[in-house]
Amino acid sequence: MPEVPDAQTVQTTQSVQTTQNTETRSVPLFLDCDTGVDDALAIAWLAAAPGVDLVGVGAVSGNIAAATGARNTLDLLAMLGLPDVPVHLGAHDFLDHPFTGGAPHVHGADGTGGVPLPRAATELSGVHAAQALVDAAHEHAGELRVLAIGPLTNVALALEIDPDLPRLVRELTIMGGAAMAPGNVTPVAEANIHNDPLAAARVVEAGFDLMVIGLDVTMHQRFEEEHRQALLAAGTPVTRVLGEVLEFYYAFYAQRFGRPCSVLHDPLAAAVATGDVVPSLAPRVPVVVDSTEGPGRGQTIADLRGLYHGFPDSPPVGPGVARVALEIDGDFGAVLLERLLTL
Amino acid sequence: MPEVPDAQTVQTTQSVQTTQNTETRSVPLFLDCDTGVDDALAIAWLAAAPGVDLVGVGAVSGNIAAATGARNTLDLLAMLGLPDVPVHLGAHDFLDHPFTGGAPHVHGADGTGGVPLPRAATELSGVHAAQALVDAAHEHAGELRVLAIGPLTNVALALEIDPDLPRLVRELTIMGGAAMAPGNVTPVAEANIHNDPLAAARVVEAGFDLMVIGLDVTMHQRFEEEHRQALLAAGTPVTRVLGEVLEFYYAFYAQRFGRPCSVLHDPLAAAVATGDVVPSLAPRVPVVVDSTEGPGRGQTIADLRGLYHGFPDSPPVGPGVARVALEIDGDFGAVLLERLLTL
Repeated sequence: MPEVPDAQTVQTTQSVQTTQNTETRSVPLFLDCDTGVDDALAIAWLAAAPGVDLVGVGAVSGNIAAATGARNTLDLLAMLGLPDVPVHLGAHDFLDHPFTGGAPHVHGADGTGGVPLPRAATELSGVHAAQALVDAAHEHAGELRVLAIGPLTNVALALEIDPDLPRLVRELTIMGGAAMAPGNVTPVAEANIHNDPLAAARVVEAGFDLMVIGLDVTMHQRFEEEHRQALLAAGTPVTRVLGEVLEFYYAFYAQRFGRPCSVLHDPLAAAVATGDVVPSLAPRVPVVVDSTEGPGRGQTIADLRGLYHGFPDSPPVGPGVARVALEIDGDFGAVLLERLLTL
Repeated sequence: MPEVPDAQTVQTTQSVQTTQNTETRSVPLFLDCDTGVDDALAIAWLAAAPGVDLVGVGAVSGNIAAATGARNTLDLLAMLGLPDVPVHLGAHDFLDHPFTGGAPHVHGADGTGGVPLPRAATELSGVHAAQALVDAAHEHAGELRVLAIGPLTNVALALEIDPDLPRLVRELTIMGGAAMAPGNVTPVAEANIHNDPLAAARVVEAGFDLMVIGLDVTMHQRFEEEHRQALLAAGTPVTRVLGEVLEFYYAFYAQRFGRPCSVLHDPLAAAVATGDVVPSLAPRVPVVVDSTEGPGRGQTIADLRGLYHGFPDSPPVGPGVARVALEIDGDFGAVLLERLLTL
């Protein structure tokens, strides 16, 4: 586990230690991300989650360029008391087309809503994120959980390095897609999948034990202004930065909801990956990704025709099959806030 | 209005007359269909609907071949006391591919679940359904309502004959598509649209005042076994045939719902077209039809991204825009049964 660098992370580290003291095994987890406002919340969640051993983080282009996201990730991990977690730069461009600038209107040009993070002394590992994922999967064979909250380019590249990855990885949780809910970058496509549909198609076809956390659930779990004010009021360096970073993101979502607020895409996926949140409805169904150039490009097409009868024909884990989260009960915003206030 | 051929249709005809007597203007309506079990229910609805002047019916391939559906339509109209409504044979094949047999597992090889209809003496008009639609639109310019409950091939062909059709037709109501709900013939495509995506794409682009009644609403309005038994018990020739025809259809839907029952696709669209049912949520939004050969082929892609904020940016009537029914309140099964028991 990482060293404790300063007082503000004591609670996090205590939680982890408590878990270790009761001899609960820590769960090795590899994160791939494009940090990004909600990625920052997900990283904070992982830092605060008891029993999670964050063994490495890959950076991919998406919300911002991979290098920018990697720098944000290094700075956040240092703030969170995890400066020893290796950060690996991954793909700048997508499998079959270039990165073209991301979503500065959502996340700010810097990925952190125009709020400068304290620059950490830590640097990138020098290992490509795809190779690092393969290495971690071998080191923790059968145990590694992978959480991918950006485009799936790095994971697809890792599959090229080692096609056996789905047998080595225990579970892959992705934030991406929209099964029945509207998309966000097109009427049917969610941004992570739409950024690199070919990569997503390969990952879905690879045969991972795959959990898909998409807009069907993430659009219904939100931070309101009161949550942001609570983060600012808590006044630790981490909570203050998260509260400030959210302001820009809230302004974007005001267009969707008519008031400043934030959906919780990436932290919700993180909470599912850590086992703290269990979807109340997440059938395992056939899934394909539309990688055509047609109007459905980037859509995750889940076969939900069993919806009216409890999904009686759910297939086993295998290529082209995933659990697709359709319902998550409870108020995750409250859970997330409580966890972040320990930081 | 049609002549009264025998006692069993008196009530229908009385209803129409009552409406005329109170000087409510009758509404000219042209139907295009692929009869079909639920088409039969829709035709029965139209026959029983006060104030509706059914000026013609086109037949298209879909559930069954166009010629078979046309014959079923003639026989049903005669049973319903409407032997003078002209029936026009339309397209057997779809715009860019042949008809390949329809859905005999859903509707039976004859379209009426293996139940022979009493053969009427009436015959087809000799005018192609597409031309008949154009003629009706000119005859009732600005007033004609069109209800299309099969593939949109005939309507697309009518647009080739007269591109001004959307300005002549007052409103086009279609049964088709699935905006957020799962599809029925693929994970995202509904049968009518999937049968001829190119035709559907052209119709959506033509600029009709278009109302889309798709699986989002039709899957939630059902006939149960008690409704069918009530039809059989009523014992008129029409209700008895409808009750018998439904048995085969119920067996198909038992696979979807775990009990014999029927969704009410086409009659629900008919009830919206006649103004008896008004969707409680049907935003006017951009719509495109996926006519690629990819996994989204046949999907009606509606831009529902305004869902979370009351669709603040709804566009006016125009090309590529439609009202998409998302919610219909109440128990349409009960309303339909009550109406059919007047026959």
